[in-house]
Amino acid sequence: MELVDRLLSGDRRAAAQLVTLMEDGGPIARKAIAELYPHTGHAHVVGVTGSPGTGKSTLVYELAKQFRSRGKTVGIIAVDPTSPFSGGALLGDRIRMQQLSTDEGTFIRSMASRGQLGGLARATGDAIKVLDAFGRDTIMVETVGAGQSEVEIVRAAHTVIVVDAPGLGDDIQAIKAGLFEIADIFVVNKADRDGAERTFFTLQMMLDMGQGSGLPDWRPPIIKTIALQGEGAALVAEAVEEHLAYLKESGDLHIRSRRLAKEELRRILGQELFNRLLVEIRAEQWELLTKEVAERELDPYTAADSLLATFFQRIAGDEAGGGGAEA
Amino acid sequence: MELVDRLLSGDRRAAAQLVTLMEDGGPIARKAIAELYPHTGHAHVVGVTGSPGTGKSTLVYELAKQFRSRGKTVGIIAVDPTSPFSGGALLGDRIRMQQLSTDEGTFIRSMASRGQLGGLARATGDAIKVLDAFGRDTIMVETVGAGQSEVEIVRAAHTVIVVDAPGLGDDIQAIKAGLFEIADIFVVNKADRDGAERTFFTLQMMLDMGQGSGLPDWRPPIIKTIALQGEGAALVAEAVEEHLAYLKESGDLHIRSRRLAKEELRRILGQELFNRLLVEIRAEQWELLTKEVAERELDPYTAADSLLATFFQRIAGDEAGGGGAEA
Repeated sequence: MELVDRLLSGDRRAAAQLVTLMEDGGPIARKAIAELYPHTGHAHVVGVTGSPGTGKSTLVYELAKQFRSRGKTVGIIAVDPTSPFSGGALLGDRIRMQQLSTDEGTFIRSMASRGQLGGLARATGDAIKVLDAFGRDTIMVETVGAGQSEVEIVRAAHTVIVVDAPGLGDDIQAIKAGLFEIADIFVVNKADRDGAERTFFTLQMMLDMGQGSGLPDWRPPIIKTIALQGEGAALVAEAVEEHLAYLKESGDLHIRSRRLAKEELRRILGQELFNRLLVEIRAEQWELLTKEVAERELDPYTAADSLLATFFQRIAGDEAGGGGAEA
Repeated sequence: MELVDRLLSGDRRAAAQLVTLMEDGGPIARKAIAELYPHTGHAHVVGVTGSPGTGKSTLVYELAKQFRSRGKTVGIIAVDPTSPFSGGALLGDRIRMQQLSTDEGTFIRSMASRGQLGGLARATGDAIKVLDAFGRDTIMVETVGAGQSEVEIVRAAHTVIVVDAPGLGDDIQAIKAGLFEIADIFVVNKADRDGAERTFFTLQMMLDMGQGSGLPDWRPPIIKTIALQGEGAALVAEAVEEHLAYLKESGDLHIRSRRLAKEELRRILGQELFNRLLVEIRAEQWELLTKEVAERELDPYTAADSLLATFFQRIAGDEAGGGGAEA
């Protein structure tokens, strides 16, 4: 595919077009993935997550500068709809973004949710593959850190940074919703604000109590930053590199890759199966059954069983008639 | 099923046991749903969502008191892992909870995520059915309002309350992540705090600019509350009742029911299909393909195609041999 060839030769526009293609999905997107996939596996994928208002976009910006100064190329994928990288930017954000986006070694892209459940996780996973094949050394994926699909996206990273900040209601609450367990590095941003010490010690206490990322020999560091002034960003960048080194040495990088492959396959299979089902069953049966469920004449599980029975009969018919069966 | 009979006769313990059964899922849970489903469709399901720290649990508590004083029975399902209803309660929360939970007309339950993707939305949907069949007039579902699965859960409500509060970072950010569009009622809680007016006017401006719930003749009201002192809760309860009346008059209640039935069927089908696939394909093929994907020898879409081909062949074999086919 010409677009993939251009990507592999370092064409930025091709990278941008391919990410757009991944947002939309479909057969051409898949063909592109099949072609570029053998060229992936090089990038270090870093998830950056935390509640709105923690300043994680500013941190991502500072980290990008850090990685660039260490000679690395950088990709940024903003899944967070509140991120300035995704559009809704204040003036200071816009200026920072402009500085980044004029740098050839930095590629910034936001991902939009196209409504379809699970679509965002797929699109983001495929966008990471594009930037990986494009040769980016470090790919940062920024998400708001709540919700299953966000956790799913961030779990696809090699290294997860969870950003907290004082003054966001109860500090412990902000970090609790499924994020604590997946953090490899904690950042307490806005460390010059009241309550930063308390946030820091709360995290430290939780780590002391044995909660954490589950890696046997990796205790997540807690790093204080004032991202708006760039303070602490170098320490975070170092921790990111140390974590990668740890993953390689411990063999955990290998284990993570296997787990991620399984999760991705599972997601694709679920989507494919449902699409095929919609093709096979008749629209009238679908409409009739949903009407019966809505009117409490039929429970949804029984309706599902009935649709599945039809589906499997059609599949059997297709396989018998289509000549595709080897059995 | 004896448990369902007891539920329908008003046995609280049966309700609690059935919700636990729904958390776990499985064939007995489905059988129970099939039996109790014809007795559902009576309850008004109210989603209450907002960032951690907005005080939505306190608001839910005050709303429960309001609905009770209007002669209604109440169910509360806390999906928010940071909610005091889910356990991690401060002293004031615990006292409030105790007062609620000793009232026969209030049933409180938290839902835990059992890890499985999409599992929480299914379990919550089924728990709502249990409390609906149990005869609860108003069922409030409390979730942290970010993330696709949370939005999915809250979309299953007839009426969605989005709670905001001043001082949570950028006010507009807090409300942006997919929640603005699904709100039927806005609450600005902690209205005695600095910045409450700004939060209020920001929401008002966004509504004026034509963003909103998409119902043609319903403009979401914005209600100021100080939930800790019970202030404003009566107004919110009234708005909830007005919204239900609007849904009934406009016919939108009917449209929503159909849409929700479709979404639920789709979720169940996706899960069922994947489970069946795992049964049909051999463990070795699954392991081999995931290894090849992890090692970049095979892209995930091609791997999925290969697994699906095997799956459909097995299905065809099962249908031909099992005698279940009518075609």
